[in-house]
Amino acid sequence: MKKTLLSIGCCSALLMVLNLQGCKPKNAGDATGSDAAGRTYVAPGKYDEMYNFVSGGFNGQVSVYGIPSGRLLRVIPVFSVDPEKGWGYSEETKPMLNTSHGNLPWGDQHHLDLSQTNGEMDGRWLFANENNTPRIARIDLKTFRTAEIIEIPNSAGNHSSPFITENTEYVVAGTRFSVPMDYENGDVPISSYKKNFKGTLSFVSIAPKDGNMKIAFQLLLPGMNFDLSHSGKGPSSDWFFFSCYNSEQAHTLLEVNASKRDKDYILAVNWKKAEAYVKQGKGKKVKANYAHNTYSDINHMATSTMENEVTVIDVKDLPDLVYMIPCPKSPHGCDVDPSGEYIVGSGKLAALIPVFSFSKIQEAIAKKTFDGDYGGIPVLKYEAALYGEVKKPGLGPLHTEFDGKGNAYTTFFISSEVVKWNIKDLKVLDRQPTYYSPGHLSIPGGNTSKPLGKYLIAYNKITKDRFLPTGPELAQSAQLFDISGDKMKLLLDYPSIGEPHYAQIIPAELIAKNSVKIFKLEENKHPYVTMGEKNVKVTREGNQVHVYMTAMRSHFSPDNIEGIQLGDEVYFHVTNLEQDWDVPHGFGVKGNKNAELLVMPGETATLKWVPGKVGIYPIYCTDFCSALHQEMQGYVRVSAKGSKVPVTFSLGKNSEAEDELPNK
Amino acid sequence: MKKTLLSIGCCSALLMVLNLQGCKPKNAGDATGSDAAGRTYVAPGKYDEMYNFVSGGFNGQVSVYGIPSGRLLRVIPVFSVDPEKGWGYSEETKPMLNTSHGNLPWGDQHHLDLSQTNGEMDGRWLFANENNTPRIARIDLKTFRTAEIIEIPNSAGNHSSPFITENTEYVVAGTRFSVPMDYENGDVPISSYKKNFKGTLSFVSIAPKDGNMKIAFQLLLPGMNFDLSHSGKGPSSDWFFFSCYNSEQAHTLLEVNASKRDKDYILAVNWKKAEAYVKQGKGKKVKANYAHNTYSDINHMATSTMENEVTVIDVKDLPDLVYMIPCPKSPHGCDVDPSGEYIVGSGKLAALIPVFSFSKIQEAIAKKTFDGDYGGIPVLKYEAALYGEVKKPGLGPLHTEFDGKGNAYTTFFISSEVVKWNIKDLKVLDRQPTYYSPGHLSIPGGNTSKPLGKYLIAYNKITKDRFLPTGPELAQSAQLFDISGDKMKLLLDYPSIGEPHYAQIIPAELIAKNSVKIFKLEENKHPYVTMGEKNVKVTREGNQVHVYMTAMRSHFSPDNIEGIQLGDEVYFHVTNLEQDWDVPHGFGVKGNKNAELLVMPGETATLKWVPGKVGIYPIYCTDFCSALHQEMQGYVRVSAKGSKVPVTFSLGKNSEAEDELPNK
Repeated sequence: MKKTLLSIGCCSALLMVLNLQGCKPKNAGDATGSDAAGRTYVAPGKYDEMYNFVSGGFNGQVSVYGIPSGRLLRVIPVFSVDPEKGWGYSEETKPMLNTSHGNLPWGDQHHLDLSQTNGEMDGRWLFANENNTPRIARIDLKTFRTAEIIEIPNSAGNHSSPFITENTEYVVAGTRFSVPMDYENGDVPISSYKKNFKGTLSFVSIAPKDGNMKIAFQLLLPGMNFDLSHSGKGPSSDWFFFSCYNSEQAHTLLEVNASKRDKDYILAVNWKKAEAYVKQGKGKKVKANYAHNTYSDINHMATSTMENEVTVIDVKDLPDLVYMIPCPKSPHGCDVDPSGEYIVGSGKLAALIPVFSFSKIQEAIAKKTFDGDYGGIPVLKYEAALYGEVKKPGLGPLHTEFDGKGNAYTTFFISSEVVKWNIKDLKVLDRQPTYYSPGHLSIPGGNTSKPLGKYLIAYNKITKDRFLPTGPELAQSAQLFDISGDKMKLLLDYPSIGEPHYAQIIPAELIAKNSVKIFKLEENKHPYVTMGEKNVKVTREGNQVHVYMTAMRSHFSPDNIEGIQLGDEVYFHVTNLEQDWDVPHGFGVKGNKNAELLVMPGETATLKWVPGKVGIYPIYCTDFCSALHQEMQGYVRVSAKGSKVPVTFSLGKNSEAEDELPNK
Repeated sequence: MKKTLLSIGCCSALLMVLNLQGCKPKNAGDATGSDAAGRTYVAPGKYDEMYNFVSGGFNGQVSVYGIPSGRLLRVIPVFSVDPEKGWGYSEETKPMLNTSHGNLPWGDQHHLDLSQTNGEMDGRWLFANENNTPRIARIDLKTFRTAEIIEIPNSAGNHSSPFITENTEYVVAGTRFSVPMDYENGDVPISSYKKNFKGTLSFVSIAPKDGNMKIAFQLLLPGMNFDLSHSGKGPSSDWFFFSCYNSEQAHTLLEVNASKRDKDYILAVNWKKAEAYVKQGKGKKVKANYAHNTYSDINHMATSTMENEVTVIDVKDLPDLVYMIPCPKSPHGCDVDPSGEYIVGSGKLAALIPVFSFSKIQEAIAKKTFDGDYGGIPVLKYEAALYGEVKKPGLGPLHTEFDGKGNAYTTFFISSEVVKWNIKDLKVLDRQPTYYSPGHLSIPGGNTSKPLGKYLIAYNKITKDRFLPTGPELAQSAQLFDISGDKMKLLLDYPSIGEPHYAQIIPAELIAKNSVKIFKLEENKHPYVTMGEKNVKVTREGNQVHVYMTAMRSHFSPDNIEGIQLGDEVYFHVTNLEQDWDVPHGFGVKGNKNAELLVMPGETATLKWVPGKVGIYPIYCTDFCSALHQEMQGYVRVSAKGSKVPVTFSLGKNSEAEDELPNK
């Protein structure tokens, strides 16, 4: 293979250019049509047309926007703790953040993919990856809650994830940072990267009915960085395509050392074949240690299980499984068009876009039109896999989606623009500036077999002068375009929270109709549920005190509790007895080294409290629930260890000294 | 005083009515003018007209919106940890969340007030209260960062806060939940409320230049609940007014027991007199234990100091200091008009709005037109203090602000509306429905001497059918009205995050011009700063390893580190060398039981890491910073305890085995 080794001096010049991000194009912000206000305004009481699920990046969460208004409807806690909702703080949700490293308060959430049936969005689940401590989450779109999180062993930087196959058979996870395998000695010199560091691609199966995840197998590959991926579709649906960079296998100063080669790769994986190999017992079972956490809406609790084994396939050992397709200069996006025939590689340092042909790839494989191998993996000849190249599309292509009308749309980080081009003739049709430096973009269904080519949203990394300043730290920005006509029209800029990477857009009707409004109290199987005020109690087991408590407008029962002692662990199990939509109750305790609870109607949630001082502690509802919300409070008395104050609890038991009022 | 004791039965019926919140009025959402889209649309590249600072309620943070677009520009971490920004997780910010109860991950942020000069907003600081573990924060509006947090002793539920005097001399803090004083024995029966529970109002002085807070004195009062407060203005500027409920002194089932009396009180405090008493040494110094935390933009570090004394004034001991004004039925809002003459009480169970006259109050005090006392505090005769009543304004008045044109605007929780009325003749001029159950409202400068009566925003507690559903948990909602004309016009609904209570709106020009873009590297006095790549190093002190590290596009230096051992505490001190706006770098470590760092240009931040397993750990930039961001990574090697692997660190030192590439 031809190598072009840039000198450090040349590279530095390139880097200087690359750092010139954020230059303000002329006409900034003047691209909107005169009807943009009307197109994006959703009148009070009217609904948005679509849901936009946006990865939170370094906030570890997933945010939900309404489109076309750009209004933030909700932040779903996933990989990071959320004191607001008690996520990661309540006894019920703590297990969701368990990993082989212990309980982690933070994750880095990069990409999202919606479940599909026959290549079309079905509105059941949303999958989310975690890039720091490799994990995949499944969010239940009936409740907008994280229902399951699985850790990925033998991996680091789960970036190439959580993309799914067209019937949601698998969700994948590809290593961004190659590392020594968990089952091998990891105490090796970093300079032994080429020998000891490996990459893995994990295929996680999804149970068709309940969505439960299980690591089906991992493919063992040479050390390098896997970036993004997408499943094939239609004719290519048995295949998965992964972009790879750092085929130089650098372990230091990657900005120079992983940018030396003219081409890196797209890895094509025949996952149907891998599945067959595993069925034939050809995988190797290795010891592993990874967390698998599930949340139940029946008992309102999460369970964390440590798994201890995973099946690994060394791709060198088995034929016809994986192939490498040369792709220019550190590809990021690796996107398959709705027909399944075209695979678009976005070399982020490239000045062209290669489009590969699935049928040509198959032909090249059949004819063994190879250009050697990479670590034992056959490398197809570039020209043998190539359909064609989009010439001079822009600088720094990152990601491509499709409109279902024969067009592709690619973001360009360096030249700050979105470019529309025709898949068949590879001609550029339109380009619009973005403000500034977009990463991913999303089109409703834009990575499925059935895109809805109405809107396009670009997620920009740099905002500088776009919004009112907020000190040194600025929000990132989304830009909504109308792509229903020949030319893209910018409609709206709106700041986004966290760092949006990949996103998904789905018509509202696919989700709204199934949205759960309350949890039925009679179906609550929480072990500490309190089914009505007559069942409230406070029990002591050694130094553990369990408060079986109810909340309803506008009181807790009990609201006076005594007999707690220093050294006690107090568990407030709060059952929200309401059965109306939008009547959560909150629960907070003064001085607690913990968060609050937000308890939905029909739900039970538990707050642990270890009081540190003797005294009287108020408890109260933290969510303005009613006209008498301010009255929804109580007191807990904490005495010294060994105190004779008995455990008592009550509601509405007045003190006898009514005549002691200050103005009697 | 006349008492009306409702029977429990009657009360229950009332409660049923009160619970009928969220009934959809007719014409829901049809109140908008045809130009609403154009009025609220801020074209790409254009700036919003005003900043809207909104309390986060149970998320513990403060959010910043642009008006009129309703776009969320930023969430400022204050009282809750924020894994996204490393707030509460970095070594530098941990001390900000320290309290006498230890380090707390969560707070309940209810109200905001902007600093004022001569009764007008000056754009310097934003004050925020914490309602769970009593605290006040000061946010620096040059950086949009929390600069200071002070804990309030002898208090619980710091609800009546953080309202300020008209030259920002003081910010106040009033107990919502009365409790035994910290300096007394707190292990008392809850039923001894009337004897042992007390309320305090704290006056915290603000240093004129740097804003530093200090508890000047606390007023000791009978046990009851203090709700809201506002400073006088102009003629009444020496006074502060606090609403009080639960004058019944109930300690259980407050929804019934604290709703029995026909009238509670507004407490009028002559703070100038209190200040003079303190200067005369008439306060009592008592032992206390509370945290005072400050953050410096010079060394980029927070310091927490435990204070040990506070000055308490028992109001019974000193004359002419406080007076009580009867106010109907559990008042919430307690709002002073721009002239300083009118004080509006919002009894949340009342069907009228009393407006009190400052000059009549002064006259009544002078003439001792009293109606007995409450715990030793003179009670003014209602009629002697009253200017007049707004008749049939709506149900459940909560909060009032002013437009500077002689009008007041009051929210009604139960009847779900905003009502405009004339301050002089007390006539209702207009009413508009809100969706649903508004708490507070805000008008730019609406609680100052110089309101800008252009916009009004109502913060609604219930949204139900207003936005696309997101499962059982829904966002709350803000509604923007145009109040420039005779009739209010609804312009926009937008969901809000956390639970907005009070808010502030300020013209952009008062803040934007002072916004800090970067921290100057040459002024960085952090003890672990690394001033350029030539100064990077890794040092070991026992089991503490300090990594002096730099970040710039697109590498960390060093990016290969070896010699870490199990049992080590590793401190990554990351200095961002960039000096351009909007180029933060992030920092994450695989498997860390900690959050990430977001490091602004010129800043140093420290992440503590205690590795739990031997192996290779990737580190990487978490904030997409440049075209080669994906290459901004490195590795740390962790060996067994006692390993002979020496501490080494490097950048760009390639392994020697270049010929080992898989496809050589």
